Amino acid sequence: MTERFVVIMAGGRGERFWPQSRLKKPKHLLPIVGQQPMLTQTIARVLPLVPKKNVFVITTRSQLAEVRKACPGLPRANIVAEPMGRDTAAAVGLAMLLVQQRNPDAAFAILPADHVIGDVAKFRELLAEAFKAAESADELVTLGIEPTEPATGFGYIERGALWHSGPVRVLRAKRFVEKPTLAKAKAYLASGRYCWNAGMFVWRVPVIEAALKKHAKELHAGLRQLGQALRRGSADAALAKIYPKLPRISVDYAVMEKARNVLVVPAGMGWDDVGSWPAVARHHGKDAAGNVLRGLSRVEAGRGNIVISEGRHLTTVLGLDNVVVVHTPDATLVCPKDRTQDIKQLLQRLQADKNTQRYL
Amino acid sequence: MTERFVVIMAGGRGERFWPQSRLKKPKHLLPIVGQQPMLTQTIARVLPLVPKKNVFVITTRSQLAEVRKACPGLPRANIVAEPMGRDTAAAVGLAMLLVQQRNPDAAFAILPADHVIGDVAKFRELLAEAFKAAESADELVTLGIEPTEPATGFGYIERGALWHSGPVRVLRAKRFVEKPTLAKAKAYLASGRYCWNAGMFVWRVPVIEAALKKHAKELHAGLRQLGQALRRGSADAALAKIYPKLPRISVDYAVMEKARNVLVVPAGMGWDDVGSWPAVARHHGKDAAGNVLRGLSRVEAGRGNIVISEGRHLTTVLGLDNVVVVHTPDATLVCPKDRTQDIKQLLQRLQADKNTQRYL
Repeated sequence: MTERFVVIMAGGRGERFWPQSRLKKPKHLLPIVGQQPMLTQTIARVLPLVPKKNVFVITTRSQLAEVRKACPGLPRANIVAEPMGRDTAAAVGLAMLLVQQRNPDAAFAILPADHVIGDVAKFRELLAEAFKAAESADELVTLGIEPTEPATGFGYIERGALWHSGPVRVLRAKRFVEKPTLAKAKAYLASGRYCWNAGMFVWRVPVIEAALKKHAKELHAGLRQLGQALRRGSADAALAKIYPKLPRISVDYAVMEKARNVLVVPAGMGWDDVGSWPAVARHHGKDAAGNVLRGLSRVEAGRGNIVISEGRHLTTVLGLDNVVVVHTPDATLVCPKDRTQDIKQLLQRLQADKNTQRYL
Repeated sequence: MTERFVVIMAGGRGERFWPQSRLKKPKHLLPIVGQQPMLTQTIARVLPLVPKKNVFVITTRSQLAEVRKACPGLPRANIVAEPMGRDTAAAVGLAMLLVQQRNPDAAFAILPADHVIGDVAKFRELLAEAFKAAESADELVTLGIEPTEPATGFGYIERGALWHSGPVRVLRAKRFVEKPTLAKAKAYLASGRYCWNAGMFVWRVPVIEAALKKHAKELHAGLRQLGQALRRGSADAALAKIYPKLPRISVDYAVMEKARNVLVVPAGMGWDDVGSWPAVARHHGKDAAGNVLRGLSRVEAGRGNIVISEGRHLTTVLGLDNVVVVHTPDATLVCPKDRTQDIKQLLQRLQADKNTQRYL
């Protein structure tokens, strides 16, 4: 039986959850939904499928110390820090090299560290089926999320012919498409032929390597160098030298949009990437006025607010509707629910001011 | 020359400035405008007119310790705590008894502890003139603020005939009227014949005593008892026994609206009772977008906000206009500028919940 690995991508900056998330403590290190950091939950979710020694976590230097804390029991060598983010294709290539060093014929899954999956049993069943498909053919397999709304924040995958029937269906993937307009998203949803691209992939080392060689020559050449350096010396030194030179490109653009040997496993499993404070609110109870209240928070004469108060601090909202208030011990954000996508703009301003940089 | 005293009323609860103000630390104990607590500023303002030993401060039990700190150099016996608030007539009566014990023929001023006065030299000139008027006749003298807008939050004083001309004019007061409707306030302002009642009075002990005896018999009888008890024993014991029985009534209603021997000194001196967060904002500089920012506070894509951040905490507002955000180490308020009058409603709710009572 082919040996299985899981590589968890934990390099996100999590700006959208500032001030709870910080450069050194982004979303996957926070219990945004649930009692444990999202990364810890992600690891727990795959452990019945692979042993701990076969779980890798790829993060960035600035998060390394905190990531280690969130991975209890994982071998220290399995947590690898990129010297800097080089987009997802480079990270996938690094994942491939890490697995290859252990077993050049292994299959491995790529999973984001910071998603919510409501139906964990279903997820495990789907992931196991994706492994089986990847192990039985020279295919790039992806878990495609069954869409529930015409979202414009995700890429889509168009499904093709049935490839394997059974309790879990596997289909050919016809094409990967980038984030659509709302009109297109509505058409995709109505057609019933599309899944969301959630960045979840399963493949064997030789299959993804061949795809990189075919569709992303420059990256593949860089990865070959990196692989040699990794075999010769320390991972840190090899990465510091070669990683910055890798092309900055997404795996979707570099490989998935070009490859023809792609399968999709449609996944209905209560998935949510919880990409914003309003998305987080969906996972919490509301009071009679539709307010989500976490910690010692109170709303008077207001509806539809999200108020999060850390520690023993009392955070109060009076006479306002649909605002997000997040209090942490050293920083507070007040913002309308429909402006949370502009938090990046605020953070750029804080970054530009020496008095506020340390709050990032 | 008649001996002069000043009695400063420092019993307000300052709810409108929560969370900076608390039950034990209301507005007059905060540097709401300026560098020192409003009470400390009020004392400094009168010291050229009376010696420290002739300045009394009347506060409430719960604030006594903090009030003492805000009155450096004042004799300890000059700071007197009501066992509970019994409205302004009882406090004026207590003031009268305190002065009477020192000198039964003295004149004294009643001044609120928490107002801003921009032109201090003018204030001193006006107050000195009010003392002169009170010392030269059996009149109740009040400083009436020259109105600058049709405010509905103050009572008004209608001016009558000129009583004394000179650099400072003294007029007969025709009548005291309660807080008017906006239409009436506009008419009062347009007429040029009205002043705001700011609760600033000057009179001799025998004159106010006679007025209380004539217009507020029950209160006068209670004060007589209280005066006897004060002479016999400790102020605390006397107050604890008799104060709770005094009628709860305002000095305006009990005396000023009824008395015919009232003079008014029209006062244009940059007065502001700074009764709310938006009023406070008038005294601070604004950024280009009209935001008032105090402490480490930042506004991105927002106009006309008031953001106050205590300590080293960073408080940020993104994409909102005209809100008040006040962060203190243990509590935060977020509220539209035009809803600050409803803070009392919020505080009632906090009072009713054992988890939040301690934040009052």
